[in-house]
Amino acid sequence: MAEFSDKMSRNDIKAFQWKRLKSMIEYVYNNSPHYRKLLEGKNLKPEDFKTLEDFAKKFPFTKKYELMESQKNNPPFGDFLAAPREKIKTVFVSPGPIFEPHTEKDEETMANICAYIFSFTGVKPGDIAQITFSYHLVPAGWFLHEGLKKAGCIVIPAGVGASKDQLDIMRRCKVKIFGGTPSFLGRIKDVAKEVGVDTKKDLSLRIGIFGAEPLPPSLRKELHEAFGVEAFDFYGVAEVGVVCSECEKHQGWHIAENYYLVEILDPVTGEILGPGEQGEIVISQLEREAMPLIRYGTGDASMLNEETCECGRTLARLMGWLGRTDISLKVKGIFIHPKQVETVIARHPEIGRFQIIVERPQRFDVMTVKAEYKPTVTDVEGLKAKLAADLRDTLRIDIAVDLVKEGTIPPDAKLVEDRRILKTYD
Amino acid sequence: MAEFSDKMSRNDIKAFQWKRLKSMIEYVYNNSPHYRKLLEGKNLKPEDFKTLEDFAKKFPFTKKYELMESQKNNPPFGDFLAAPREKIKTVFVSPGPIFEPHTEKDEETMANICAYIFSFTGVKPGDIAQITFSYHLVPAGWFLHEGLKKAGCIVIPAGVGASKDQLDIMRRCKVKIFGGTPSFLGRIKDVAKEVGVDTKKDLSLRIGIFGAEPLPPSLRKELHEAFGVEAFDFYGVAEVGVVCSECEKHQGWHIAENYYLVEILDPVTGEILGPGEQGEIVISQLEREAMPLIRYGTGDASMLNEETCECGRTLARLMGWLGRTDISLKVKGIFIHPKQVETVIARHPEIGRFQIIVERPQRFDVMTVKAEYKPTVTDVEGLKAKLAADLRDTLRIDIAVDLVKEGTIPPDAKLVEDRRILKTYD
Repeated sequence: MAEFSDKMSRNDIKAFQWKRLKSMIEYVYNNSPHYRKLLEGKNLKPEDFKTLEDFAKKFPFTKKYELMESQKNNPPFGDFLAAPREKIKTVFVSPGPIFEPHTEKDEETMANICAYIFSFTGVKPGDIAQITFSYHLVPAGWFLHEGLKKAGCIVIPAGVGASKDQLDIMRRCKVKIFGGTPSFLGRIKDVAKEVGVDTKKDLSLRIGIFGAEPLPPSLRKELHEAFGVEAFDFYGVAEVGVVCSECEKHQGWHIAENYYLVEILDPVTGEILGPGEQGEIVISQLEREAMPLIRYGTGDASMLNEETCECGRTLARLMGWLGRTDISLKVKGIFIHPKQVETVIARHPEIGRFQIIVERPQRFDVMTVKAEYKPTVTDVEGLKAKLAADLRDTLRIDIAVDLVKEGTIPPDAKLVEDRRILKTYD
Repeated sequence: MAEFSDKMSRNDIKAFQWKRLKSMIEYVYNNSPHYRKLLEGKNLKPEDFKTLEDFAKKFPFTKKYELMESQKNNPPFGDFLAAPREKIKTVFVSPGPIFEPHTEKDEETMANICAYIFSFTGVKPGDIAQITFSYHLVPAGWFLHEGLKKAGCIVIPAGVGASKDQLDIMRRCKVKIFGGTPSFLGRIKDVAKEVGVDTKKDLSLRIGIFGAEPLPPSLRKELHEAFGVEAFDFYGVAEVGVVCSECEKHQGWHIAENYYLVEILDPVTGEILGPGEQGEIVISQLEREAMPLIRYGTGDASMLNEETCECGRTLARLMGWLGRTDISLKVKGIFIHPKQVETVIARHPEIGRFQIIVERPQRFDVMTVKAEYKPTVTDVEGLKAKLAADLRDTLRIDIAVDLVKEGTIPPDAKLVEDRRILKTYD
């Protein structure tokens, strides 16, 4: 098999991934009690997976809560663990808590992945990078640190807070790369104004590696104008690692497909979705020693793009973060957060309590906002039309409106009532 | 030359150190502009140092402010830098700011030093360690982390704060080694009480690796009683690294003499002091690539003990932390902090403002506390005797008392007037 390249054809990438995934299936079957049980429970053995298609059809999914349960029942690392305890070197702890054990080889792998992913941003050996993610408990800071180090950069583990000191370091060290949340760089901009530092003339920032937070176009522009910084958004999952990052074309996150197989799953039907369809990001690690995760549902929503990017890379892209599948509703293929509905309702003071009801009477989803109108309302039909138009404008899908008298919605009614027959994927 | 061992004779240790120091002198002369200038300014060349005695007689000292100045004038790393910039990987930043660049080799060295130093505490491969020092900017967390990892432990980078989460991790992971400040473990003890966790039965702590704070015997006892933890105190300097740690006999900090030459200097006369004499800790690094520090005055006060320890190790020991030389006075060979005098004065409400005056009329120091008595005082001689006795009891040296009428000490008088002719060491 040829060396992996980010200009390979899709077929060659799939072949490369399958080869790695196949070894991984054998590894977890032989070493991880969780996966052994999971496969045995379905009467499956590694030899039952002869192609990626077999995997797609048969390999069971794992959800985050299962990992948490496993660690609760078998403290501290749970029965996902595939490496002997004496090989574990560093353990990160994400809220849950979820313990994330890493062997020395895993640390090396993660540094390689990050060096690869962040090479898309154009970092150069000798560039000074200031990492303002936390290095405590959660792994974001470490992953960026080790990746940029491996890419030849000089890295300052700056951590969170102390924005005035951060600004001073940025200025004195002519820091070129900022790693952190976009809102923290925004905060540093404010501090610079307070203390009279010119964010363009006095600083040397060129590359912003942003994560852990949405990066709206307005903030991207604001930070570019203030610092002259080009923003690169990346995506990672604490228990998995850094997965993908933007290239210079800024059209989605290129996945390190040499290290991960990323699939998109319909959280309602459990089907695997094709490019362009919105669903849950499901990740299989192709290289991990301590605690490999195979078909791990992240709970994050996105969609895949498998077209060759304008940059020339053929690596599949995740098209941004579209919310959480566990707090969002997927209606007509679009993720909708109840908060969005609430925002619209708040613009109509004539309306009181409301409920979101989703049904699938035949093949298609129907979403209804059932809302109580105040006794003072005289033109109920007019209000209904206004609200329906406002919902459509904001959420971009047709939503039925059902206006009812105050006191009609029971006090204990659920905010979201999903009446579709759900086939969950377990 | 034989391999280094911590049971070598003092002569063999010195020979080992000299061999390494000799290479280091050549290295800094050839690579560090600061040391080149420093030696050239004294008409010295590496070949002028043929023995450790030559070094002791001729090699100039460097103070912390000189490092800070150098970095201010040649940002960011100053002219101490001895490695090409492209070799620098990680930069820590301590208050000052002082930038502490490390190459990959330096990171490896520091991990080796820490693994060695902390082996004195009896840590075992597979033990889980929770490191509660910060990993941001300052290097204490990193050094412990990498050292314990190298010693085979499983390390959780827990960081500062979040004591309830820390307690939960400690319990769930059966953490055996706590690394951090003793006061933070004290805080965790309080939290355990609040949430009903039994610090002995529910936890598995055995070893406390404490630093960055004094560890009085009372606190040592308290933590032992609460957690069943054996406390090991260590000492390090951000810009140098971890230098020394207690062994199981808890009689001073064994120095990693294979990596450091530690001397004690009289901050008043500039003389090098012998074992048992109190002075400033001066460190020379025997292995460092990016920014080696040779004869670097730490500003911390201690004294050396070169006797073989009851544990059998011949490594010289530093006998604890005796304060800062820049805020303490050294009088009659003892470090005295003005705060100690203030505490005694506060016990005598008949006394108002005071001054500390130190003189050396002939060969010996004379310290006088000049203090104003309130107009209400009738028995001035009695008060003087009482105060003198109290000062002697608390500070353990004879101190003259000079009582004067209220209003006698000028408003702008210095709290400490050191009238000795000082020979500073530069």
